[in-house]
Amino acid sequence: MQNKGTSLTKYTGKASLMKTEFSLDTDHLHEECGVFGVFGHPNAAALTALGLHALQHRGQEAAGIVTYDGVQFHIERHLGLVGDNFTKPSVMERLKGDCAIGHNRYSTAGGPNLRNVQPLFAEFAAGGFAIGHNGNITNARTLQQKLQRKGSIFQSTSDTETIIHLIATSDQGVLADRIVDALQDVQGAYSFVALTSKKLIGCRDPLGVRPLILGDLEGSPILVSETCALDIISAKFIRQVEPGELLIITEKGLESRRISKPKLKRSCIFENVYFARPDSIVEDLNVYEVRKKIGAQLAREHSVDADIVVPVPDSGTPAAIGYAEASDLPFELGIIRNHYVGRTFIEPVDAARHMGVRLKHNANRGVLAGKRVVLVDDSLVRGTTSMKLVQVVRSAGALEVHMRIASPPMPNSCYYGVDTPEKSQLLASHMSVEEMRKFIGADSLGFVSIDGLYRAVGEAGRNNESPQFCDACFTGDYPTRLTDKESKLC
Amino acid sequence: MQNKGTSLTKYTGKASLMKTEFSLDTDHLHEECGVFGVFGHPNAAALTALGLHALQHRGQEAAGIVTYDGVQFHIERHLGLVGDNFTKPSVMERLKGDCAIGHNRYSTAGGPNLRNVQPLFAEFAAGGFAIGHNGNITNARTLQQKLQRKGSIFQSTSDTETIIHLIATSDQGVLADRIVDALQDVQGAYSFVALTSKKLIGCRDPLGVRPLILGDLEGSPILVSETCALDIISAKFIRQVEPGELLIITEKGLESRRISKPKLKRSCIFENVYFARPDSIVEDLNVYEVRKKIGAQLAREHSVDADIVVPVPDSGTPAAIGYAEASDLPFELGIIRNHYVGRTFIEPVDAARHMGVRLKHNANRGVLAGKRVVLVDDSLVRGTTSMKLVQVVRSAGALEVHMRIASPPMPNSCYYGVDTPEKSQLLASHMSVEEMRKFIGADSLGFVSIDGLYRAVGEAGRNNESPQFCDACFTGDYPTRLTDKESKLC
Amino acid sequence: MQNKGTSLTKYTGKASLMKTEFSLDTDHLHEECGVFGVFGHPNAAALTALGLHALQHRGQEAAGIVTYDGVQFHIERHLGLVGDNFTKPSVMERLKGDCAIGHNRYSTAGGPNLRNVQPLFAEFAAGGFAIGHNGNITNARTLQQKLQRKGSIFQSTSDTETIIHLIATSDQGVLADRIVDALQDVQGAYSFVALTSKKLIGCRDPLGVRPLILGDLEGSPILVSETCALDIISAKFIRQVEPGELLIITEKGLESRRISKPKLKRSCIFENVYFARPDSIVEDLNVYEVRKKIGAQLAREHSVDADIVVPVPDSGTPAAIGYAEASDLPFELGIIRNHYVGRTFIEPVDAARHMGVRLKHNANRGVLAGKRVVLVDDSLVRGTTSMKLVQVVRSAGALEVHMRIASPPMPNSCYYGVDTPEKSQLLASHMSVEEMRKFIGADSLGFVSIDGLYRAVGEAGRNNESPQFCDACFTGDYPTRLTDKESKLC
Amino acid sequence: MQNKGTSLTKYTGKASLMKTEFSLDTDHLHEECGVFGVFGHPNAAALTALGLHALQHRGQEAAGIVTYDGVQFHIERHLGLVGDNFTKPSVMERLKGDCAIGHNRYSTAGGPNLRNVQPLFAEFAAGGFAIGHNGNITNARTLQQKLQRKGSIFQSTSDTETIIHLIATSDQGVLADRIVDALQDVQGAYSFVALTSKKLIGCRDPLGVRPLILGDLEGSPILVSETCALDIISAKFIRQVEPGELLIITEKGLESRRISKPKLKRSCIFENVYFARPDSIVEDLNVYEVRKKIGAQLAREHSVDADIVVPVPDSGTPAAIGYAEASDLPFELGIIRNHYVGRTFIEPVDAARHMGVRLKHNANRGVLAGKRVVLVDDSLVRGTTSMKLVQVVRSAGALEVHMRIASPPMPNSCYYGVDTPEKSQLLASHMSVEEMRKFIGADSLGFVSIDGLYRAVGEAGRNNESPQFCDACFTGDYPTRLTDKESKLC
Repeated sequence: MQNKGTSLTKYTGKASLMKTEFSLDTDHLHEECGVFGVFGHPNAAALTALGLHALQHRGQEAAGIVTYDGVQFHIERHLGLVGDNFTKPSVMERLKGDCAIGHNRYSTAGGPNLRNVQPLFAEFAAGGFAIGHNGNITNARTLQQKLQRKGSIFQSTSDTETIIHLIATSDQGVLADRIVDALQDVQGAYSFVALTSKKLIGCRDPLGVRPLILGDLEGSPILVSETCALDIISAKFIRQVEPGELLIITEKGLESRRISKPKLKRSCIFENVYFARPDSIVEDLNVYEVRKKIGAQLAREHSVDADIVVPVPDSGTPAAIGYAEASDLPFELGIIRNHYVGRTFIEPVDAARHMGVRLKHNANRGVLAGKRVVLVDDSLVRGTTSMKLVQVVRSAGALEVHMRIASPPMPNSCYYGVDTPEKSQLLASHMSVEEMRKFIGADSLGFVSIDGLYRAVGEAGRNNESPQFCDACFTGDYPTRLTDKESKLC
Repeated sequence: MQNKGTSLTKYTGKASLMKTEFSLDTDHLHEECGVFGVFGHPNAAALTALGLHALQHRGQEAAGIVTYDGVQFHIERHLGLVGDNFTKPSVMERLKGDCAIGHNRYSTAGGPNLRNVQPLFAEFAAGGFAIGHNGNITNARTLQQKLQRKGSIFQSTSDTETIIHLIATSDQGVLADRIVDALQDVQGAYSFVALTSKKLIGCRDPLGVRPLILGDLEGSPILVSETCALDIISAKFIRQVEPGELLIITEKGLESRRISKPKLKRSCIFENVYFARPDSIVEDLNVYEVRKKIGAQLAREHSVDADIVVPVPDSGTPAAIGYAEASDLPFELGIIRNHYVGRTFIEPVDAARHMGVRLKHNANRGVLAGKRVVLVDDSLVRGTTSMKLVQVVRSAGALEVHMRIASPPMPNSCYYGVDTPEKSQLLASHMSVEEMRKFIGADSLGFVSIDGLYRAVGEAGRNNESPQFCDACFTGDYPTRLTDKESKLC
Repeated sequence: MQNKGTSLTKYTGKASLMKTEFSLDTDHLHEECGVFGVFGHPNAAALTALGLHALQHRGQEAAGIVTYDGVQFHIERHLGLVGDNFTKPSVMERLKGDCAIGHNRYSTAGGPNLRNVQPLFAEFAAGGFAIGHNGNITNARTLQQKLQRKGSIFQSTSDTETIIHLIATSDQGVLADRIVDALQDVQGAYSFVALTSKKLIGCRDPLGVRPLILGDLEGSPILVSETCALDIISAKFIRQVEPGELLIITEKGLESRRISKPKLKRSCIFENVYFARPDSIVEDLNVYEVRKKIGAQLAREHSVDADIVVPVPDSGTPAAIGYAEASDLPFELGIIRNHYVGRTFIEPVDAARHMGVRLKHNANRGVLAGKRVVLVDDSLVRGTTSMKLVQVVRSAGALEVHMRIASPPMPNSCYYGVDTPEKSQLLASHMSVEEMRKFIGADSLGFVSIDGLYRAVGEAGRNNESPQFCDACFTGDYPTRLTDKESKLC
Repeated sequence: MQNKGTSLTKYTGKASLMKTEFSLDTDHLHEECGVFGVFGHPNAAALTALGLHALQHRGQEAAGIVTYDGVQFHIERHLGLVGDNFTKPSVMERLKGDCAIGHNRYSTAGGPNLRNVQPLFAEFAAGGFAIGHNGNITNARTLQQKLQRKGSIFQSTSDTETIIHLIATSDQGVLADRIVDALQDVQGAYSFVALTSKKLIGCRDPLGVRPLILGDLEGSPILVSETCALDIISAKFIRQVEPGELLIITEKGLESRRISKPKLKRSCIFENVYFARPDSIVEDLNVYEVRKKIGAQLAREHSVDADIVVPVPDSGTPAAIGYAEASDLPFELGIIRNHYVGRTFIEPVDAARHMGVRLKHNANRGVLAGKRVVLVDDSLVRGTTSMKLVQVVRSAGALEVHMRIASPPMPNSCYYGVDTPEKSQLLASHMSVEEMRKFIGADSLGFVSIDGLYRAVGEAGRNNESPQFCDACFTGDYPTRLTDKESKLC
């Protein structure tokens, strides 16, 4: 993650010409990264491009691939979508070699900047080292200051570079030892892939907050953030990388080491119910089925006398199908999404600002007029989208609008690699459910309960003594220290 | 439309740097254009950009806007999406004035080229004239040869330029008369908007094959290809422009003239059931409802003992919902679409060619495994997509795959502005339904009947004496002459 | 030439991205174009690129090449220098074929715009036709209006396009007849090259104002504006194209026709003494020697008691050498020119505006301090450059500065293809020599006389009854009508 | 300098799109860098841009400027000429602040790459630090390996980055002490400017091999590589920075420290006689006058019976004037240079390869035919240019060609920041003067003697005990160790 606001340096070289103006969709949460790695396959770069394409929902601002061809590393990092950059013959031909790692990035408010695009690369005394990272280190700024005082020079504001400098300055001998040594000082959530001239490395933080999965394609080990990146290349799912596990893949095979003593897993519950693609398997559960179950749970917790169930496309669709089935109401496409909305539309056209959400969503009047509508979305963050959608649905002639949210109220920011607004901008941080209902203008508003959420993922409920997941955004129960925040460094 | 293959000239100036390599999605039909016009509104350019954005599904290769500010015309034409170009302040600030026309273009195999991007502009002796056109003129090449022999010089291969030269060389006096005169020689389908220093003009061909709609925003007349372009700017729907009607909008108001004697309308049935956005009203019918009715009709005509109904997203979704309801089977998202698939992905990565359709569609195994699946799509053109989807669904563990197509078999090319493969590449031109079933590998295959299709749009069936629509792609019954084709000029 | 100020249309598409901001060097005259043609040589495009490179001084804003490969025409037109565009393999590989024409363009105040870059290309009924033109047609706007009234549509504001439309609409049969017919209506100065699928054509206006030369390389005919374009490819000089001559080069050989009855030649005296490269042979005279002779003549007409002769580099260098030799004074490089001054420097840096000419010229103090300096330049147009140079030389310690100008005072604009300021901005149009001396701040100022100038080109003096050259800029004696100017169309 | 061939990493991100293909002019030597600094002037960035423009001859591949505005540093680095980049309002407006440093770079064979463009910037624990460097460190790779082993991570292959890491890892306290400490380990030639939030710093290596000059503009201190960069902004020359001097300029004034004990100066004799602009004052001598004296010395050492003296423009012009005066022969422009030759022309056009030097130089036949020619150039490196020029002059009809070179034979490479071919490619490393004469095909060949060269700069001759200049390229007498070369690291 980019540590915001700390550098007074402003780089405005050529790279800025490539800067895409974009309006952050500030009413949704964003996963910040997806990673991919492959060892020993003749199509390493192409497989990585395909895997990153399947993981595109985890980061759309930029992507990068590093390959090693036995002699040289080749590095390509580009702002924009995978499909817009990593399909050009000129780019792909340069990515020679049978080992590769790749990274998708969702940029935060600091803006897109090639300097922060991953994988990062460093020339160690022992040779080249490339790394791509998903997550966020909660003491990155603290560590950076310490390293700078000892003479390390940082080129980016990425917390990934902190890991590189920790490895570079470790007093241990071989690389695996240096990595284990470096990570002892690191707090937070991280899943990373790394590539050297001899090794593909994968590592997941001690709590396993962010996902990392091991697969196999024709004998070549594959590392991915989500199983959909295995599907796209017809690779087999082998297993999840364990929390605190360091995987070292060489020509001789796969070695597993630990970077920490085993702890209880606290994987992010939002990966399953929100970020991941519906066709992914997360923590052994089919994401689409989980979301339908949340919808059904929501129907049980917040039933209502209505005519139709309408999803906010596409994020609310699986839960709406579940809700419709459980409540025996018709499922109807009452809102049509314009898929050509890129990240760029709204900002520059002043006239458009006032028209807001209709750029992306239009009411389907024929469906909505005269109906009592259950509107299902996956989350409510700032509430602005919900407010506009309620208006859109009403102005198309709906008699009643009942908003149902397939996640609990969210009053807390995430510090583990999810781009959330500041706490003060989260509607649930300062409003009751009834206040939120009034804010968005719905006739009723219902959130799935936290226990209902846990039931949808197969638990009997939340174990408050020892929670089965990281759910800090809902509960405020952060499983690691937040050192930079405590020191007001971020 | 671009007349293919006739020019031996190859322009490769700077414009070609902007050329986007793209793989035509050759297994779907493409509408070629969308048009928009507004007269006398202070935000003319912004409204046009928004309208074109809502019409983006009608043409994604390029877009253009022409405005007139009382003194000058301003012309911006760009390859790429509306949202990528017509949101830049630098572009929008140049589009001064309160009258504007705009155009979206879907380019054919000849490739994207700024020369062919519309609106086209010409300096007549009487002043500037901009025009954007949706449709295809079936004697454009014949007319072009005639004009060239009299000394007209063509700059593009667009049939729109033929209209411009006919107007320029007309021996009539005022512009309206020149247009009516020019169009007497023109065969085919066309709906166009035009802008002069004093007038906004809209015109629809004598049979009304392509749509054109009149709306109103705060007293300013608006012309659009589909009603969704009115919705996005909260404009009112007034009426359809009539077949053979020439609308001349000036400061004094709206004048309606005829370019031909009234004939029976033959509007394109595919606009309603295939191209138009589901939230548009086409020929007074809600498109989404029509598609659900086709799905229900399909369930009646081709019922099957199955477990779930799965749409090919997003094109097959409304029909699948209709099918599921009519057959009382669960509607499930068994195929997940990757919305980040641009037009560029497949080609350059060789390894990807063999993986084909999974770039765009992935099976949702949890849903499909062990199920008898009804798979619903909107059309079957070459059959390659259907074949791959049947494989994808089977390889995810489906026990049976029953393909249902929400349109009749299509053995004929369109010559009225829809980009269809040549007849020989249309599967239905040389295969029976059973042969097609074998080709795509489905357990059963059913198309909605031609009469079923007419019933879904509210008719009792097709009136074979005097068909209510243009349905030449299904029936081969072309409502105009195809002069260029007869002369082997195209 | 671009007809200034007539069109209210503003094209601001992608092409404008390529627009080079540039400050016209408004205190010098600029030749507007150079042309090149080759017939039947395997390296046609490369030879053309080289020839245009040698003619780069005749136009730096843009260049274009058209080739014909027996099947197709290939067109490349680019803003910028020949060496920056026509050396890229991607560009050169597209220019297939063994016949080619090329064109360098110096853009006028209307600004660089790909639409106006030549060669222009048109698809006639009889096939493709490319043309590149050097000169200016003095009734182009008048002809354009006439053509537009008959239905011709103009795409550019280039007077070259007027020639194309005249040929297209001629009622004659074969191309040569159509060209002769078209040119009957054309007034002004023009030398053009044209290419069809079978012919290379060269033509010079009836007075031969602008140059055109026939050469030969290994049996392939070559047409060039100046002999230096023959030298660069080691081609032989054959002869000048005659005034009023139309050369038609085909596989069968070279045919010469006349477009007018023979008249007395009035070639531009400035080609020889000012625009042409010093190593060119113009009208059978070595340009460098002519300029040295003008310097010597200047020494005779305006001798002065001084210490050193200093050229304004590089334009004044040959005349300064001639002056130094004739006056037996040392020739010294007292002003150093920065060759990295492109067209872009001065404008944007506000601070630089006040420092003006030093961006391009710096005083060489060691040479100038304490000296009485004769400063030699080739012309005095607005006087601003001379004023600054006098200051620069004085501030470096020169005791006296005697300015000598190697051309007569110039009170008149050129309408034959040379970019001159309007008459009102020409210093000599409203000042006596003494007033000009005061304006530039020199201790003395001397111009070569008009008869002195004629003597340097080998004449006894100017024949005022029947002048041997076009010298309208000095004398106001225009050898053709200026129809557009008389009609206030330009 | 970029250390060639040491890194196996290949960066090919977006930056490579900006890569200019260029043919290194391999038969001339190239200065690698120019630097500029200004403290406390409201137009800091504009002055820096102008200064870099005046120093453009010292490096044409790239330029960069860093400013500090009291809060932030602003960094702009661009490939290409100063005038093409640092005149754009968008660029200049970003360079806020009243302190600035700038750098011109001549890239070596490794190619242009934004990563290596200076000034480099690093965020030290104590704040930002920007540095631009002229010269070459002869133990840079050795130091880099040592630093990497301690954990420093290098982003570029620039030896300038080595200086940054040495400062960052110094165990001294304040910046000035850290710099002095860091430089103790550094061997070679360097003159650098640096900028922090409080200081402008200038430093020259202990022998003063590369130049650095202190000037003043309206009370603001200025640092420049050559005096011509003072002239362009009308700044005053104050003094040369002394060898081994560290200048620290703050708001309180100018502090001078020493980085080494005083040694005898060994400034590069080539700065004066070859690289510097003729209007610069180098080591208190006017460069133009020095070159004329070398020409005169050459006439004395190698007189010949001839008709004219012709310079190879523009490098040989001052010496040719000196030669002509001393030998009383006419000075004539027998070779015309095409100033539009950029760095890009020759390579891509195959046909051009054989035509070679004529792209840049054309014979002026009228001058040369029938003459005995003395051809004067400034140096003879590989001999290929001289060979071609002799041919060009002969083929224009010269009877005899006598080549005179205004520097001694050069058998040795430079390791102090001048881009020289490897020793094996230097003609003088393996040929006698007579062999070289035959190689280039001249009738006679003469070089100025080493003592003659020293006399032209005001010495009685070379003091072989304690040479007054660095003249290693002529004599092989390197004034510092060449550690990397000895260790085969470069």
